[in-house]
Amino acid sequence: MTLPPSDSSRPTLGIIAGGGAVPLTVATAAMESGRPVVIFAIRGEASAGVERFPHHWIRWGEIGRLFDLLVREKVGDIVISGSVTRPDFTSIRVDLGAVLSLPKILSLMVGGDDTVLRGVVRFFEDRGYSVVGAHEVAPLLVADVGQLGRVRPTASQSHDVAKGFEAARVLGTLDIGQAVIALTGRVVGVEGVEGTDELIARIADLKSRGRLKWSGREGVLVKAAKPQQDLRVDMPTIGPKTVEAVAAAGLAGIAVESGRVMIVDRAETITVADRHKVFLVSERLGGVEAQVVAEDVP
Amino acid sequence: MTLPPSDSSRPTLGIIAGGGAVPLTVATAAMESGRPVVIFAIRGEASAGVERFPHHWIRWGEIGRLFDLLVREKVGDIVISGSVTRPDFTSIRVDLGAVLSLPKILSLMVGGDDTVLRGVVRFFEDRGYSVVGAHEVAPLLVADVGQLGRVRPTASQSHDVAKGFEAARVLGTLDIGQAVIALTGRVVGVEGVEGTDELIARIADLKSRGRLKWSGREGVLVKAAKPQQDLRVDMPTIGPKTVEAVAAAGLAGIAVESGRVMIVDRAETITVADRHKVFLVSERLGGVEAQVVAEDVP
Repeated sequence: MTLPPSDSSRPTLGIIAGGGAVPLTVATAAMESGRPVVIFAIRGEASAGVERFPHHWIRWGEIGRLFDLLVREKVGDIVISGSVTRPDFTSIRVDLGAVLSLPKILSLMVGGDDTVLRGVVRFFEDRGYSVVGAHEVAPLLVADVGQLGRVRPTASQSHDVAKGFEAARVLGTLDIGQAVIALTGRVVGVEGVEGTDELIARIADLKSRGRLKWSGREGVLVKAAKPQQDLRVDMPTIGPKTVEAVAAAGLAGIAVESGRVMIVDRAETITVADRHKVFLVSERLGGVEAQVVAEDVP
Repeated sequence: MTLPPSDSSRPTLGIIAGGGAVPLTVATAAMESGRPVVIFAIRGEASAGVERFPHHWIRWGEIGRLFDLLVREKVGDIVISGSVTRPDFTSIRVDLGAVLSLPKILSLMVGGDDTVLRGVVRFFEDRGYSVVGAHEVAPLLVADVGQLGRVRPTASQSHDVAKGFEAARVLGTLDIGQAVIALTGRVVGVEGVEGTDELIARIADLKSRGRLKWSGREGVLVKAAKPQQDLRVDMPTIGPKTVEAVAAAGLAGIAVESGRVMIVDRAETITVADRHKVFLVSERLGGVEAQVVAEDVP
């Protein structure tokens, strides 16, 4: 793969950045592919690392200013990436653009989480921008098929992986959670709206109370995307903290759907997994095609 | 239905009784149908109410004595019923029968919960007894189809009931939990090994932390049996406490699979549901036939 020089005739990639390392990974990947980048860093959310790249700091509520900057910077595609805390809406000072968008914004906020995300995508698309996924710009954010670290699952652990994927696939079609925990041949925990961290904590708690018993390291956290999930703005994610939690719970490993689950800080995640002797594997789920576009995002 | 006089030519029904009201309900139903009954009440578990019926108190570990009593009382069929705390195995004094059965008992104890129950059934069957379900002797323990209390679900609540049953049926085929909670059109919680009480508590907790939002009463607890579940010794159960927990969580109602979910203390359960304005409905799950035998247990 060659690294073309920055090509100012290509439309600029705008990265609307919340917290964490993912926006920086996306910016780096885009620049390495020769694509001009500007980060729109949300103040109070994005890390100071954004200042290594062309950037503007924006505040919650500065929607008019954001759209002015998008035009001025000749942005064509947008990546929305990084964690956000729920903003304190009462303290937000809104600009004129936000006031004009208010009916739309309010209608987004009353929906469920998925509705909000779909609405945010449509909000930008209605204004002529195309929203692309972080993993489409930086394919290394998602796992390819196979074993990622040094630890290999045992035969019985591989059986738990298969059990978990079987359940995760079905749960996905029902639009339930993204994660399950399978242990010694059966699914013992299923993620609902509480999220993966609380699912892992629940299994650890059941073990500490003697309601679940196993010795040594057993059991696997399996995470997959729902078939209908909009991976551009809502991708299942694991990272070093997930590995730490899995290890602390006494589980043996993590299995993710390849191409459709984001690994935040891949190198560190694998290092931590190896250190804790946690296996980390990735499998393609039957019937679901992963969409990873390496360089040329339309 | 006539109540035949007690018929000493029919084999006696032996009820191995743990705690709670269900063993007493079974004993009453059997006697009302003219069938001789003897309760084998586990000390420390069964309620004092067993003393209204022919009974023997037995201790954990008195397996030899239990089989002697089963012979002496001419027991043919056995119901195993009622709650048990996990006995403190270190303090159990075992009799000769237990010692002779020890290899078998140990092999039961190392399996999972379902394996133990299947093993217990086989343990009695291998000795010539047939194990029948509490609901086969006392059909009123399970719900028939329809609305049980005075509260009727709204259209959107009925939609949640349908969503919940759809998920519960699929989860059952995967041998996962027996219960889900559906809220405003989606499944928000799924029971794993933690049980129904903790599932309800989790949803209440998510609401109190603002992670789930709804106003008034919404959402339904849906409970169904797994297709492969041995209903003779392992039946999903709801009762007055389930209704109290559902009401405290701000949920609107409970839906159970008719014929295959036990309602402990039916009258009290309905009274509590009406008092808290919680709906209580029962539906037959497609593709699964309920087996309720009213009187003549083979």
